[in-house]
Order: sequence, then structure tokens, then C-alpha cells
Amino acid sequence: MRIGAPGAEKPVVRLDDETYVDLSDVVHDFDERFFADDGLERIRPVVATRSAAGRVARFDGERTGAPIARPHQLLCIGLNYADHAAETGQAVPAEPILFNKAPNTLVGPDDDVRVPRGSTKLDWEVELGIVIGRRTSYLDSPEDARDAIAGYVVVNDVSERAFQLERGGQWVKGKSAETFNPAGPWLVTPDEVADVNDLDLWLDVNGVRRQSGSTRTMVFDPYFLVHHLSQFLVLEPGDLVNTGTPPGVGMGFDPPVWLQPGDTIELGISGLGTQRQRVVAPR
Amino acid sequence: MRIGAPGAEKPVVRLDDETYVDLSDVVHDFDERFFADDGLERIRPVVATRSAAGRVARFDGERTGAPIARPHQLLCIGLNYADHAAETGQAVPAEPILFNKAPNTLVGPDDDVRVPRGSTKLDWEVELGIVIGRRTSYLDSPEDARDAIAGYVVVNDVSERAFQLERGGQWVKGKSAETFNPAGPWLVTPDEVADVNDLDLWLDVNGVRRQSGSTRTMVFDPYFLVHHLSQFLVLEPGDLVNTGTPPGVGMGFDPPVWLQPGDTIELGISGLGTQRQRVVAPR
Repeated sequence: MRIGAPGAEKPVVRLDDETYVDLSDVVHDFDERFFADDGLERIRPVVATRSAAGRVARFDGERTGAPIARPHQLLCIGLNYADHAAETGQAVPAEPILFNKAPNTLVGPDDDVRVPRGSTKLDWEVELGIVIGRRTSYLDSPEDARDAIAGYVVVNDVSERAFQLERGGQWVKGKSAETFNPAGPWLVTPDEVADVNDLDLWLDVNGVRRQSGSTRTMVFDPYFLVHHLSQFLVLEPGDLVNTGTPPGVGMGFDPPVWLQPGDTIELGISGLGTQRQRVVAPR
Repeated sequence: MRIGAPGAEKPVVRLDDETYVDLSDVVHDFDERFFADDGLERIRPVVATRSAAGRVARFDGERTGAPIARPHQLLCIGLNYADHAAETGQAVPAEPILFNKAPNTLVGPDDDVRVPRGSTKLDWEVELGIVIGRRTSYLDSPEDARDAIAGYVVVNDVSERAFQLERGGQWVKGKSAETFNPAGPWLVTPDEVADVNDLDLWLDVNGVRRQSGSTRTMVFDPYFLVHHLSQFLVLEPGDLVNTGTPPGVGMGFDPPVWLQPGDTIELGISGLGTQRQRVVAPR
């Protein structure tokens, strides 16, 4: 995790709901260099030693930041759940649809989501996020992608549908406003995820369940996606990949349901933690 | 400029074809922090003092890197010349079309362009690149964009058309392979550009003129573009914006002309310098 004020988060490892090990004296940040230098393996013995010696701290109401620093790139997969493709009236893609978000959209899991100026169709998307662990290019097989993945995070791929679909394209235009990518609370390493292809996802707006799904119904699974992406570009350590959303986005209702200032969004993925955002008015 | 081996470039200011002022003792790099800290203004007196005192060095065959470090984001505008839109069979857009490239595509102006594995339709695009000078959001007018621009660069927006248009979308898929964004040789500050809306662009392949155009025929000019982008996302200092290409891309010929290993691409923009890349086989 990264806890503290925006831009001044310190890197820690959560032990349980109450306690953590502070790593700010040995790790600069959970950033590209950290992952490139095999940081996750290097901190394991430090955490074990400090935990055994009782060198732990107690959470004290600090803000939770995104669990990784701003990545080199924030990639997104579109229409990656067959039932979500159906609700948006689009065909299930033959190959993964790739688009980007601005990396500076990354915020903490409980930070406010700000309505952009001129927004009329603000929408939500609970997603499984993949964090890349090493420089990755031209993987031979999806199986090889396992070694390229540092871990998984909950993501809300906030979207402005008018900007995305009615302003001349491409989708990035409706995906990149500030606060549009809450992530966390935790980066969960693969050894702590029983089966990434069997995780439940859910999202509520003002206490009403809007999305519920499972990674079982993904069109392309995380290993396939990382292998596929690596054929087109070079993934850097710490890159974040949003893997698409299950059914139940606001655009899919009849009539559509759009987020408004004052709304509360809550979302989560089994084993990966939960998020809670308040929607606030434009600057 | 940034000169030296890939990943170890040093920041310098070119005085003329033969000489430069070395700034590596006062500037870490021409990166996001440099531009955010008003670096361009801070180095002016240093360059003046050193130049007057004869503290200059001579170019000695060093490699030229991209003139900026890897940016937070690399944005691109599509179909921004009316005659280029026509040659690709697409309508002139009513609003700027926005897409992204992976920032790690950035390379020096004379570095090799590597054919991606599986590529069949490798294409070129000479473009004017805008480097953003400060954090920029919700500009009130295109006129206000002047203060947000650090300078201009020549860019080759290398594209793989099959990846871009035939692999499930979006365009980013055909824009993000390694070496796909040669930039430079120089960052030219606005005070050294007489009129950014009256610059000639050209590109040759193997000595044959393929593209020639002028920023006079842009659909949306640089100030309009920066203002427009700032309504949808937050631009960070050092971000790079490729502003679209004039007519003459390989896709526009009948039959189309695609780049092959061994080809040489030469391109330039009046006052902004020239580039020369060799096309090399896939890794």
C-alpha cells in the first residue's frame, strides 16, 4: 500500500486491518524502478524480519493512495466481458480492444471523483487491474505472462460517455479527466490470489447494486492480455492494465443512469479490497 | 538538445552547427521536473554567461537523442490536415481526433526504426510536435495556450497500418511499437519560431519525396489543439503532442507503399531541423 497525503504517500506493507510494516526507509516508492529492480522480492525478507521483531505500525486514519506510483502508461481493454459488450450494443471483439488513459488520472481508492467541466454522461466501471512487474516484450505464450505480472488491484475506470463516443474519438478522450482512475487499496501479489480467473467483482451507486460479475466471464484472461499486448508494444515495470468491466454500467440501463455530484460509488473485488468514492462538482 | 548514448544523454544547448553549451552540471535532464520548475527560463542566463565566457564545447559525432526525456504522456492528433484526411478516405473531423502512443516509443532523430514482428504495413508520418511547458487544464481560450507551450520538435509518427486498423482497435495498437516516435534533433522555443502556422514539412523515402506540406493547411492549429486537449485531461510539463501529418503517407498511394528493412527515411520542418532513420529488421 501507499498511505499519506497526495504526492507524499509512503510505501508500506499491510499485515492485517490494523497493522503495517513501514518501508519508507528502504523503498523510495512503488514505482517503475522499484519493480524493475525486483523490489517485491527484495522487500519480502525485510517485512518478515520487521514483522517477527514487532517493528510494526498501526493504521491511524491515514489516507490511502493508489498502491503504485504514477505508471509509465495506463492501458485499458475494451468490451472484455461478453455480457458487457451486449449491454452496450457492440459485438464481442475477435481480438482485445486497446485504448489508453492519461497516467495522471491515477488516484487513491477513496479519493473524490470529480465531474469534468461540460460532463453530461459520467459513468462507472469496476475492473481488475494488472500491474506489470518487469520490462516485457514479445512473450512467447500466455503462460509466460505469469512471470511478467507483479500483482492485481481494484480499479474504477471512470468514463465520460459523451466525451468518449460523441466528441470525435478516440475513446481516450472520455477516459482521461483528472481523478478518473481510482486504484487500490492494495497491490495483491499473485501468490495471494487463489485464481485470478475466478474473482467476483461488484459496484454499488448510492447503495444500489449496479454491477456484479466474475472474471470467469472475461473474453480474454489476464495472461492472454499481457501476452497479446507484448506483441504490439513494450510494457514497462509498474505499468497498469485495466482489463475491462462486467455488465451494469450506467450507459447500459434504459434510460441510462449517469453519476451526479453527491453520489457515492462503492466497489470491490473478492480478496483485493474495496473502494468508496464521492462524486464532486467540477472545478 | 540531448546528446550521448541511449539512456545516458546529457542536456545541452546548441549554439550553432559546431558548438554547444553543456548544462549537465546544472540540469538533471529535460524532463517533467525541469519544465515544471521553469527550467527554460532558468538556463537562459547560464547559457548567455557561458557562451560569452567561451565555455562552449564542440560537437564530436555524438549521437543525438530525443530533445526531451520520456514524457508523462504522448498524445497524437489524427487527420489534422484536410488533404491527408482525403487521401485516407476519411472525412475532415469536426473536432480534433485524439489518440495516444506509448511514451517509450520516443527515440532520437537518427536512431533506427525497427520493424515490429508480424508487421506488413509500416508507414511514415512527418509531424510538428508540441512540448508542453507547464501543468495545463481548462484553458479559457486558444490564445492562452501560447503560455503553455515550451517549444516545438520534428516528429516521425511511425505507424503500422494493419495493427492500427485491422486488429480490433483502437489506433494506439498500431502506434506504440518500440522506436515508433523519433523526435528532434532540437526543441525549438517559441521565440525562435517566426510563425508556427507557416512551417513547411517534408519527408523522403530512399531519396524520393513522399510528403510535402505546410502547417498553413492544418485543420486545427497548435493553440486550438492545446486549448481543446486541456478541456478533457490535464497536460503535464514535458508532455509531447504530435499534431497530425500532411498528405503523402504510404497508405495513401495506389498501390500503397510500405517501409521495408534497408529503407532510409529523411524528414524535416523548416527551422526545426532534420531527421534520418534507417529501417531495420524485427528483433
